[in-house]
Amino acid sequence: MTAPRLESVGILGIGLMGASLALGLKKAGAVSRVVGYSRSPATREQALSLGVVDAVADSVEALAAQCQVLVVCVPTLSVPAMFQALASCAADCVITDVASVKGSVREAAISVWGRVPGHLVLGHPIAGAEKSGVTAGKADLYENHKVILTPEPDTDPAALALVRGMWQAVGADVVDMSVEDHDRILAFTSHLPHLLAYALVDTLAQQNCSYDIFRFAAGGFRDFTRIAASDPQMWHDIVLGNRSALLGSLDQFSHYVSRLRTAIEAGDSETILNTFSHAKAERERFARMLAERAARADAAGAGE
Amino acid sequence: MTAPRLESVGILGIGLMGASLALGLKKAGAVSRVVGYSRSPATREQALSLGVVDAVADSVEALAAQCQVLVVCVPTLSVPAMFQALASCAADCVITDVASVKGSVREAAISVWGRVPGHLVLGHPIAGAEKSGVTAGKADLYENHKVILTPEPDTDPAALALVRGMWQAVGADVVDMSVEDHDRILAFTSHLPHLLAYALVDTLAQQNCSYDIFRFAAGGFRDFTRIAASDPQMWHDIVLGNRSALLGSLDQFSHYVSRLRTAIEAGDSETILNTFSHAKAERERFARMLAERAARADAAGAGE
Repeated sequence: MTAPRLESVGILGIGLMGASLALGLKKAGAVSRVVGYSRSPATREQALSLGVVDAVADSVEALAAQCQVLVVCVPTLSVPAMFQALASCAADCVITDVASVKGSVREAAISVWGRVPGHLVLGHPIAGAEKSGVTAGKADLYENHKVILTPEPDTDPAALALVRGMWQAVGADVVDMSVEDHDRILAFTSHLPHLLAYALVDTLAQQNCSYDIFRFAAGGFRDFTRIAASDPQMWHDIVLGNRSALLGSLDQFSHYVSRLRTAIEAGDSETILNTFSHAKAERERFARMLAERAARADAAGAGE
Repeated sequence: MTAPRLESVGILGIGLMGASLALGLKKAGAVSRVVGYSRSPATREQALSLGVVDAVADSVEALAAQCQVLVVCVPTLSVPAMFQALASCAADCVITDVASVKGSVREAAISVWGRVPGHLVLGHPIAGAEKSGVTAGKADLYENHKVILTPEPDTDPAALALVRGMWQAVGADVVDMSVEDHDRILAFTSHLPHLLAYALVDTLAQQNCSYDIFRFAAGGFRDFTRIAASDPQMWHDIVLGNRSALLGSLDQFSHYVSRLRTAIEAGDSETILNTFSHAKAERERFARMLAERAARADAAGAGE
């Protein structure tokens, strides 16, 4: 299935996510023209000179005026301000975003437009990289990654199809779900693990012998805490943006931990063994799922 | 520095840890003869036919009778029974172990011998692998890994030197510390992360949409939960063996999590940002430490 070629895509905020989308669309030949806008003139210059975009606009309004699809790629907590700016100038383009939280972004849309307008399709590509910024952009960032779209009852089907086709053009596997499901699932699989990793490293760092503690840490600790090196500002935005679902998942997790704590204190071998065995079986199911996904991706790649 | 060649090393329990030590010692030419004992006749046969050991004994007593150094490589909670068996037959050999917890093992020694005898040197190599069993043995498992020894005031210096030399012969970096420091450090760097990973995967698995949750999990979740695939029986033994230090570290961690929870609920950006930024800086310090260690190991390897 080949999606129709897009005339023009606007990238609002040219960091890792926006630059990668621009590069991916250009590489796939899926767009005639990519225009970028960043608040920073230096980033605009870089995006042009690196060939990430074909042209830059010098304002949000100028960007909106020349785009068929406009992708808001700014940090989660900056999305409301962008919607505010777009409300008066982007009636003729399809708008979508890449923020990691969808509930707070939907609220922002409602406070700006009074509802989620039909031409706004909220989305979240589940992809990232250790580096950030326009120079970190990679044309294949979204290949074989999931992109979640959260259409509303009023969403214009043509707008939804356009956004879906855009992501499929860069190799993503696009899935629709409700805003609530998105935020709850991401709270469990991403936001809560980040919170726990940050908290664990911080707990360790407060110990008197923190140097020794790190010195004797092995591979398990390295993997477990890798995500604690993520961008603090970005994760600050995400935990506040998804506050309610995150706290819900944290409370459920804390409940399980406290059950385990009681079992350990009581020497309750059966509960401990059952919990660990069940978790191991589930983790292995997850590993098989990842392996099958990788195999499918390889097979798709080989068939190209 | 070359340690004197050992006459005979006995491996009591021929799983991953014991088999790897046997193979490493033989590869280094650091021992004249390795004898093994396992409760399972099939494992004894395998150890012989794979060349992991030079000979097998058919009882703990027979093993003790022919060893200069006897290494107890059974699971943590089985160590007390082994000490019981060794009390009457191993007065003439140096005994050491590889258990992940040292406090409970020391208690077992005291209950068997009335004190930690001079010829017993407790130890813990911080190394492991995903697979287990005699067939998983690797001669280089301990290379450039830490081995912690926890000598007591009464420990015979010659016994300590023998055990230290044995681990150095397989390429390990041997460090002495107290039993209390060992158990506290390992609670933070290893036992607590395992507990949290098991608890997180178990929390997720209890959700109605657990299939979807796993389906949308990405790389961060994969790394964070990798250790939840570890052997449940082994980790059951460890959490019960190190109960007190583990619960102490868990309570400190829970305190930090609950501070973060309050900050998120209150929208206290400053606390959230400070916590995440501090954790990121510490995690990066840890990553540099690992990188320097790897560079030193490479340099040592190149100089061989």
